[in-house]
Amino acid sequence: MRPEPIRVLVWNEYRHERDDPRVRALYPQGIHGALADYLRRQGFAVNTATLDEPEHGLNEAVLAATDVLIWWGHVAHHEVQDAIVARVHRHVLNGMGLIVLHSAHHAKIFRALLGTRCDLKWRDIGERERIWVVAPHHPIAEGLDESFTIEHEEMYGEFFDVPPPETLVFISWFQGGEVFRSGCCYTRGRGKIFYFRPGHETYPTYHHPQVLRVIANAVRWAAPTSGPLPTFGHHPSPPEPL
Amino acid sequence: MRPEPIRVLVWNEYRHERDDPRVRALYPQGIHGALADYLRRQGFAVNTATLDEPEHGLNEAVLAATDVLIWWGHVAHHEVQDAIVARVHRHVLNGMGLIVLHSAHHAKIFRALLGTRCDLKWRDIGERERIWVVAPHHPIAEGLDESFTIEHEEMYGEFFDVPPPETLVFISWFQGGEVFRSGCCYTRGRGKIFYFRPGHETYPTYHHPQVLRVIANAVRWAAPTSGPLPTFGHHPSPPEPL
Amino acid sequence: MRPEPIRVLVWNEYRHERDDPRVRALYPQGIHGALADYLRRQGFAVNTATLDEPEHGLNEAVLAATDVLIWWGHVAHHEVQDAIVARVHRHVLNGMGLIVLHSAHHAKIFRALLGTRCDLKWRDIGERERIWVVAPHHPIAEGLDESFTIEHEEMYGEFFDVPPPETLVFISWFQGGEVFRSGCCYTRGRGKIFYFRPGHETYPTYHHPQVLRVIANAVRWAAPTSGPLPTFGHHPSPPEPL
Amino acid sequence: MRPEPIRVLVWNEYRHERDDPRVRALYPQGIHGALADYLRRQGFAVNTATLDEPEHGLNEAVLAATDVLIWWGHVAHHEVQDAIVARVHRHVLNGMGLIVLHSAHHAKIFRALLGTRCDLKWRDIGERERIWVVAPHHPIAEGLDESFTIEHEEMYGEFFDVPPPETLVFISWFQGGEVFRSGCCYTRGRGKIFYFRPGHETYPTYHHPQVLRVIANAVRWAAPTSGPLPTFGHHPSPPEPL
Repeated sequence: MRPEPIRVLVWNEYRHERDDPRVRALYPQGIHGALADYLRRQGFAVNTATLDEPEHGLNEAVLAATDVLIWWGHVAHHEVQDAIVARVHRHVLNGMGLIVLHSAHHAKIFRALLGTRCDLKWRDIGERERIWVVAPHHPIAEGLDESFTIEHEEMYGEFFDVPPPETLVFISWFQGGEVFRSGCCYTRGRGKIFYFRPGHETYPTYHHPQVLRVIANAVRWAAPTSGPLPTFGHHPSPPEPL
Repeated sequence: MRPEPIRVLVWNEYRHERDDPRVRALYPQGIHGALADYLRRQGFAVNTATLDEPEHGLNEAVLAATDVLIWWGHVAHHEVQDAIVARVHRHVLNGMGLIVLHSAHHAKIFRALLGTRCDLKWRDIGERERIWVVAPHHPIAEGLDESFTIEHEEMYGEFFDVPPPETLVFISWFQGGEVFRSGCCYTRGRGKIFYFRPGHETYPTYHHPQVLRVIANAVRWAAPTSGPLPTFGHHPSPPEPL
Repeated sequence: MRPEPIRVLVWNEYRHERDDPRVRALYPQGIHGALADYLRRQGFAVNTATLDEPEHGLNEAVLAATDVLIWWGHVAHHEVQDAIVARVHRHVLNGMGLIVLHSAHHAKIFRALLGTRCDLKWRDIGERERIWVVAPHHPIAEGLDESFTIEHEEMYGEFFDVPPPETLVFISWFQGGEVFRSGCCYTRGRGKIFYFRPGHETYPTYHHPQVLRVIANAVRWAAPTSGPLPTFGHHPSPPEPL
Repeated sequence: MRPEPIRVLVWNEYRHERDDPRVRALYPQGIHGALADYLRRQGFAVNTATLDEPEHGLNEAVLAATDVLIWWGHVAHHEVQDAIVARVHRHVLNGMGLIVLHSAHHAKIFRALLGTRCDLKWRDIGERERIWVVAPHHPIAEGLDESFTIEHEEMYGEFFDVPPPETLVFISWFQGGEVFRSGCCYTRGRGKIFYFRPGHETYPTYHHPQVLRVIANAVRWAAPTSGPLPTFGHHPSPPEPL
C-alpha cells in the first residue's frame, strides 16, 4: 500500500543538550539526533528540526513533506511562535501524524489539539517505572511484552488533564505510588496523535529498546491514510431531491 | 443529593433578534429569553447574559455562580474577547457544564475546548430533520421517543470536524440526503460539554417540545459533580517509601 | 426527577461467609448484608438475594422491581443457572443497572454482557492498593479525594480482558508492581454497568468508607433513566415518502 | 512489516444463492465466491468456507491459518453449532480479525462478542442508501469520497442494539427517513472486529466498488498485530519487592 518510506520529522527544543553536560553525555547529537538515528535504521526517511532554526525548522514546505512529526520540548514551550503552532495544527487536522513525547505534554501544539491544560504531577528522584500494555490488539504494542521496565525515570502522576484517550495503550506504575496513562491515542480531523510518557532528558530513556520500539510503532500507526479530505461550508444543492 | 436548583446561565449573541424582524417575531425576548423561560418552568435557577453587555455578561462572579452555561452564537463569534473565552475555558475545566447550541459550533470557546475547527456543511432551504436516539441509556435521552422530527430546519452535514464524541446521543437525518452527529458529549477536566445541533434562528426550533426537553436533560447531565479537584505540579515526596 | 428511592438488590454467592470463620468474622451478615446495611443508611431501598435461594433469589418479579443489581461471586460462578443469567441479561438491556464487584469479573452475567473472558492476573499476599481517580468529572467519583488507599488487598493485574471501558474512572496501583483498570463503565442497550475491583472476602474492604462511597455513587449513576425503549424488527412503512 | 499476504477466510451461510434464482443470478459463485474473487485480485490469500461443510468449514487448523475471517449469514444463524462459535470466539480474542457483514448482525458469533441482542429495524423496499464517512482519519476510509451511494438496498434503522462502537466510521442515510451506524469498529482481547452494514442478498451490493473497497480496507485494518499475548491467573511472586 505504501511503497515509499514514511517521512518522519523529529523536532526538538534542543536546549538541555547544549546547556547541561549530563544531558549532552547521554545525547551528544541531541534527543532528536538519537531518535533520528534509530528511526533511520528502521527504514524511515527522517529529518530533524529544532527550536532555534528559522521558523523553528517548520516552514510550510517542510511540513508538507512530513508524514509524521515527533515533538520533544520542555523549558521553552513559550518560545514556540503561535503562528507556527497554528501551522502545525492545520497540518495535523489535514492528516499529518503527531507523536508527543514526555514533557511535550505542555507544548502549545498538544494543548491546542486537546483543548485542556495537559497538566500532571511530577517528581524527579529516579524511581522505577513499569509500563503495562492494556491494549494488546493495538499496532503500537507490536513486538512488546506485557510490560517493560525503565529503571530510572521522572515520575508523572494522575490526574493527567487530557481528554479521555480514544485508545489507552499503556499505563505506568511508579515505585513511589503513582500511576499514569502513558500511551494515549487521539484523532483530530484526518490526523492521528499519540502521546508517550517516557523520556526525561537526564536519563538514557531514548536508548531503551522498548521505548524506541514504541516510537517506531507509533510512527507507523500515525502515518497518514488516504481517507476523504472533508469539504465544509455552503452546499446549497441537496444531493437528494426534496 | 442536590437540594438547591441547578444554576443555569443562558448566553446569547443576541444580534439576529434585534436586526431581523422574522427572528424577533419568533423570539421576542431573544433566544436566551425563550430558553430561560422554559428552563425556569422546569425548576432551574436561570440567568441570561449577552454579547453586548460588559465582559459579555461573563465576569468572574457570574461564572463562579453558574453550574451550567448554555451558549448560542452565530455572526459575531469574532467579537467575543479572547480573555473572556479563556475565563470560560477555565471554569469548564474546573467543573462548570457547557451546552453549545447549533451555530455555536464555531464559537471560540467550543473550538478551544475541542481542539479542532468544528466546521461542517450547511444549507438553509427549510428541509425536514429527523433526530434519532442512538444512546437510549443516556440521561440526555430521558422522556424522548426513538426519534423526533423538526419540520423545517437548516441542514448541517458531515464531516463534522470535532473529536469523536465520548458519547454520541443523537444522529440527524436530513431530507436532502445528509446525516449529522447531532448530540455529542465530551468531558474536559472536571467539566462536561454537550453539543446539540438544532436551532437556526429563522425557525421556531426553540419552541419545539422535544428540543427543549433535550436542553433541560442536558443541563441536568452537565451540572457539576463533586469529584476531586485535581492538583498538579511538583510532588517531591512519594506517597510510598522507595 | 426521581421522587422514590432507588431500589437496589444486593446479590451474593454467600459461601465464604458460611464456610470460612475469618470471612464470617468480617461479614457476619454476609457481604450482601454489609453492603445492604450501608446502602440503606444512604437512603436506598435495598433487598438482598443469594445463590442458594430458589432461582438464586432472582425471579422475574424481583428483577422487575429492581433498579440496580449489585453482584458478588467467587467460587460458585458455575452454579448460577444459565436461564437466570439470560433473565438478568435481558433486564440489564432493558435498563436495570448492574454493579459487578471484585471476583465477579468471572461471573457468567459479566462475561455475557462484555463478550470477553474477563480474565486477569491475581495474587493474594495482602499488599497495599492505591486507587487513583482518572475521571474527576464523573458522578462515580463524587466526594472522593484524588486517590485512596486500601492497606491490604488481593492484587489484580493487567491485562484485564474486557472491552475498553467506555469510561475509565479508576486505576489501581499495587505495591508489588502491577496496575489495574479498577473502575470501568459500560453501557449495553438501555442498561449501565460498572465494574469495581476491590473486595476480596478475607479483607474488611467493604467496611472501607471510600469503597462504600464508590458503590453508592455507582448505584446512583447506574439507576435506569427513561430513555426510549427501542423497537426492533420489520418496519414496512417508511416514515418519509419515497 | 508483513512480507506475506494476509490470509482471509470468507465464510458464507450459502443458502439463498442455492434456493433463490434471483440471488444466484447476482452471485453465481455465492456471496463468498464474489468476495473471494475481489479480495484475491487485491493480493490477499483467500479461502472460503460455508455452513454445510463439516464443522462449517471452520476446524481448528483452518482458523489457525486465518488472519481475518469475513462472515455473512441470514436465515440459518441457529444452525451454526455453539461449539464452533466458541472456537471462533477464542480465535478472535487471540488476534484473528473478524468482519461481520449485513444480516450477520444476528450471527451467534457477533452477539457473543458484543454481549447485546444486535437487533435493529429493517425494511426491504429497495430504497437508496447514502453512506457518509465520519472518521476520515481511519484506514477503513482509505480511498473513499466523503460519501457514496447504493441505489437500492434493504434499510436498517436505529436503534442498533450494539455497544457504542469504539470507532464509528460510517453513518447511513436512508431515503425512507432512517439513519444507521453502518461501520462500527470494536476490539476484544487481541482481536479486531468490524461490522459493515450493506449487503442484502437480492441486490448487487457486493459488486459495488466502494463497498468492496471498504471490505478490503477492513481486512487490512483487522489483520492481527504482534502485541503481547496476555497471561492470566495466579502470579504469586510480585515483580517488585514488597
